[in-house]
Amino acid sequence: MKTRDRILQKSLQLFNEQGERSISTNHIAAALEISPGNLYYHFRNKESIIAELLLGYQHEILSLLNVPENRPMEVADKFAYFQVLSSQFWKYRFLHRDANHLIDSSQVLKERYPIFARQVMQRGMQIYQGFVDAGLMAASFTEIEALIINIWIVMTNWSNFLLMTGHITQTDALDERWLRQGLRQMVFLEGPYLTGEGRAAYEPLLQTFGDGGQGGWFGG
Amino acid sequence: MKTRDRILQKSLQLFNEQGERSISTNHIAAALEISPGNLYYHFRNKESIIAELLLGYQHEILSLLNVPENRPMEVADKFAYFQVLSSQFWKYRFLHRDANHLIDSSQVLKERYPIFARQVMQRGMQIYQGFVDAGLMAASFTEIEALIINIWIVMTNWSNFLLMTGHITQTDALDERWLRQGLRQMVFLEGPYLTGEGRAAYEPLLQTFGDGGQGGWFGG
Repeated sequence: MKTRDRILQKSLQLFNEQGERSISTNHIAAALEISPGNLYYHFRNKESIIAELLLGYQHEILSLLNVPENRPMEVADKFAYFQVLSSQFWKYRFLHRDANHLIDSSQVLKERYPIFARQVMQRGMQIYQGFVDAGLMAASFTEIEALIINIWIVMTNWSNFLLMTGHITQTDALDERWLRQGLRQMVFLEGPYLTGEGRAAYEPLLQTFGDGGQGGWFGG
Repeated sequence: MKTRDRILQKSLQLFNEQGERSISTNHIAAALEISPGNLYYHFRNKESIIAELLLGYQHEILSLLNVPENRPMEVADKFAYFQVLSSQFWKYRFLHRDANHLIDSSQVLKERYPIFARQVMQRGMQIYQGFVDAGLMAASFTEIEALIINIWIVMTNWSNFLLMTGHITQTDALDERWLRQGLRQMVFLEGPYLTGEGRAAYEPLLQTFGDGGQGGWFGG
C-alpha cells in the first residue's frame, strides 16, 4: 500500500478508536513508524487528512447507493442499502461523532459536509422514489423527504446514541447485535409506507432483526 | 437572583452560544463580573456546573412531561408535549451538541446522562401508552419503544442536524421556522400510528407546520 493510503487508513482507525481530538499528526506518524516530515510530504496538516477522508467517504457511499438502471427496484435492494449505510456510518463514525466540532474548526469541512449530506440524502430520495415506482411503497414527495431526514439523523447518530446511553463504549466494535438494532430502527421508520411485496416483507424483516417483543431498552 | 443561580444561568447561555469547550470558569466569572473565588465558592469546577445543569434539565423536562392523572389523554396534549420537548432541547442544546465529549471527559456525566435519557424515554413510553389507551393511537409495546428511540434521536440531534447541514449557524436562535420543521419531523414519525381523533388531527397538524409540499431541503 502507498504511504499516502496507509496514512489515511491509520488516521481513520485512530480517529475512530480514540477520537479525532486526541490524535495529532505526530501520533499518526508514530503509529505508522514514519517521520513527521514524511507525513507532511503527503498531507499539510490534520485538517487535510480529515478533508480527504470525508471525500473518500462521500465517494464510497455514493458509489454503493446506486439506483439500478435496467431493472425495477426489488425488496432485496432495500436490505442491501441498509447494510451498506450502516457499515459505512460505522466505518467513518468519528466524522459523525465529532462532526460539529470538526465543522467549527475547519472551513473546508464546514463547506464540504453540507454538500456530502445533501448528496447522500438526494440519492436516498431517488432510491425511495424507485421503490414507489416499483409499487413497493406509497409515499408522497414530502413524506419521502421527511423520512430521509429522519433516517439520516437516526443512522448518523446511532453509534452516538448507544455510546451516550451507556450501551457500548468508545472502543467497542459495533457488533452484529447493535448493527441489527440500528437496522431495525430503520425498518420501523419506513415500515408504514410499505405496500404490496414490500409490506409482505416487513414482518419477516423485523423478525430477522430480533423483534420478539423482548423490549426492555429502558427497563420499561 | 442568587449568585448560584446567576452562575448556572450565565453558564448555560455561554455554553450554548460559544460551545462548552471554549468556556472556562474564568470566562463565566468575568461575564458575571464576579471574582473566580466567588464562583469557586459555589461550584468546585466546570464539571460541577454542567452536572447541576443536567440535573435541572432532567427535573424540568420530567415535570413538564406529566401524564394527566384524572382524565384520558387528548389530542391537544400531544402538541403541548412536542412544544415542551423541542423548547427544552433547544434551551439545553449544548448538552446534546457536545454530549459525547462531555461524557468522555466527566465520570459524573457518564453516569448521569444514561439515567436522564432513560427516564425521559420511559416517560415518553407512558405518554404514548396513554394515547393508545385513549384510542388516539394503535401501537404495540415494541412499536412504541422503537418510536420513542427514533423521536429521542431526531429531537436531541435536530439543532445539530441544522448546524451541520448549514441551515443555521452556531449563534442563531432556533427561530420559529426551524422549531416548526423539527416538530413536523415528529409528526411524520408518529403519524402512521394515529387512529380515530388522533388521525383526524394529523393532516391539519402537518398544515400548521407548513406542509404545502414546498420541499426543497436538498435542492429537490
